[in-house]
Amino acid sequence: MQTLHQIQSAFEKYLRELSFGSDPDNLYRPVRYILSLGGKRLRPVVLLLCHKLYDDDISPAMPAAAAIEVFHNFTLVHDDIMDEAPLRRGKPTVHHKFDTNKAILSGDVMLVLAYDYLLRLQNQTLIPTVSRIFTQTAIEVCEGQQMDMDFEERTNVSVEEYLRMIELKTSVLVAAAMKIGALTGGASDADAQKLYEFGRNLGIAFQLQDDLLDTFGDPEKFGKQPGGDIIQNKKTYLFLKALELADDHTRTELLEWYSNTDFDEEEKIAGVKSIFTRLDIPAQTKRLQTEFEGKAMEQLNGLDAPSEKIEWLKAFAEGLMKREF
Amino acid sequence: MQTLHQIQSAFEKYLRELSFGSDPDNLYRPVRYILSLGGKRLRPVVLLLCHKLYDDDISPAMPAAAAIEVFHNFTLVHDDIMDEAPLRRGKPTVHHKFDTNKAILSGDVMLVLAYDYLLRLQNQTLIPTVSRIFTQTAIEVCEGQQMDMDFEERTNVSVEEYLRMIELKTSVLVAAAMKIGALTGGASDADAQKLYEFGRNLGIAFQLQDDLLDTFGDPEKFGKQPGGDIIQNKKTYLFLKALELADDHTRTELLEWYSNTDFDEEEKIAGVKSIFTRLDIPAQTKRLQTEFEGKAMEQLNGLDAPSEKIEWLKAFAEGLMKREF
Repeated sequence: MQTLHQIQSAFEKYLRELSFGSDPDNLYRPVRYILSLGGKRLRPVVLLLCHKLYDDDISPAMPAAAAIEVFHNFTLVHDDIMDEAPLRRGKPTVHHKFDTNKAILSGDVMLVLAYDYLLRLQNQTLIPTVSRIFTQTAIEVCEGQQMDMDFEERTNVSVEEYLRMIELKTSVLVAAAMKIGALTGGASDADAQKLYEFGRNLGIAFQLQDDLLDTFGDPEKFGKQPGGDIIQNKKTYLFLKALELADDHTRTELLEWYSNTDFDEEEKIAGVKSIFTRLDIPAQTKRLQTEFEGKAMEQLNGLDAPSEKIEWLKAFAEGLMKREF
Repeated sequence: MQTLHQIQSAFEKYLRELSFGSDPDNLYRPVRYILSLGGKRLRPVVLLLCHKLYDDDISPAMPAAAAIEVFHNFTLVHDDIMDEAPLRRGKPTVHHKFDTNKAILSGDVMLVLAYDYLLRLQNQTLIPTVSRIFTQTAIEVCEGQQMDMDFEERTNVSVEEYLRMIELKTSVLVAAAMKIGALTGGASDADAQKLYEFGRNLGIAFQLQDDLLDTFGDPEKFGKQPGGDIIQNKKTYLFLKALELADDHTRTELLEWYSNTDFDEEEKIAGVKSIFTRLDIPAQTKRLQTEFEGKAMEQLNGLDAPSEKIEWLKAFAEGLMKREF
């Protein structure tokens, strides 16, 4: 979609020219490193797209878009320390390339820099409102990350808790990006809230699909071998829903696969997949995903923006769910 | 000083009643823990004192005072991870009591909560200005912490760099607290800036005195055995100034004490102290400290506030330097 790519390029240019400190080098080099690893810039792009629904000139929203992207990258740096992840986007994570102390501190300064950019919004009267949305969201993202870490230790996670966790850990930031973009563009509070709900529901749908594709995706299309979540014993929607629906015998079988550390990888993936299939988990996941997608799309009705621009959002959502963005 | 103690009590009460999340417990328990360890609440107290210079009712400044205290405690949590410190105020540090991941994440949420409190200021028009001061300061504190970590690895740290490091790592937050308090109280920009400079210079004077007392302080008055910095090979003002002034022979002698890991503690302290004394370092440190104190006190001339209130600030500064606050 042409509009999205234009926005993406404009944002990349803005980000490249963004000034932040250079001294001490050990503080700012990790910041430049993580921001240079690229990625789709999904969150700033949707922020700018929502701004554009109400105002063709996206430049006033750029500081907020940068704030959201820098914040997102801060969460990656600190999450990678907590998860002991060696790689991010195929490159060494910040704490591997530099060290853990530098990753903690450069993450901290990125969180502050996110506010710094937000406070550069030209429209001063928007600053308190936008800062409050951003702050509430940042708190929720921390809560989601803690829930995710807690779930690793717990054996009694419910599907409901899981949905709340993915909402906090990933969806609210997309939702906040959309709401903030709407507000910088001059949307009414009602429209801004609808776009928040659009982003929140779409984010949950995306994460559910992510869980499904990780186990049942076509490796040709999805770009990676399926089964990673199973090997890592991740408590995904598929696993939790299966535990909920399984009879005692099947539940025991599933829990054995997840507690046994001595197994053949292919055999474990096949064993767990066969349980999921028996319980009709793929269709159940797809149904819930479609439900959230539907809730997202509903929000677009009655937006006070030109209908051809609302089409951009629909095309974006469809492209996202087809993994084309 | 009665006024200070009243302010301190009022702030403690406000902090106790301050609401922040409770769920997930693993995120918020460390926050409550570090804030319950107490301390003198120096930064919020000076913020409220500066507010009181211009407005007797300190309640409008409470959210900003809480923001500064929560931010300060965030820095303690993350610094203690980086320094591998087991104790803080005689109790286990957050990463020791909980774990490193929880200390990283609860530190992160405290940084966000600091903004949350700042954004609760009733006077909306102040929010952009006060948030920018706070943000600039938070960036500088991160820079100071990185400089401090860099200095541990470096052998060529200059006295000038050291002074800049302590300014960033500790003084600017005291300075910002004073400036923000002045602004919430209704001070002119000129007065707010004078109070910033008062805090900045006083903070540097305090840190220089801290270095001096750590080595030459009276254990009865100072409450701890002197020599801790020497044992830890800390690059304090005393050490760096001694390296600057020493002849080749004395420099070699000093560097030997600092590189030798196999020594008797008492002997090392005595050896290093005798070099410092030979080079007249205590008097030099005292002179520089007095110079910064003088620069601080100068700022109080011509403040547009009642002279009896300005006396509070003088009494505060004197009490602080006598370690009575």
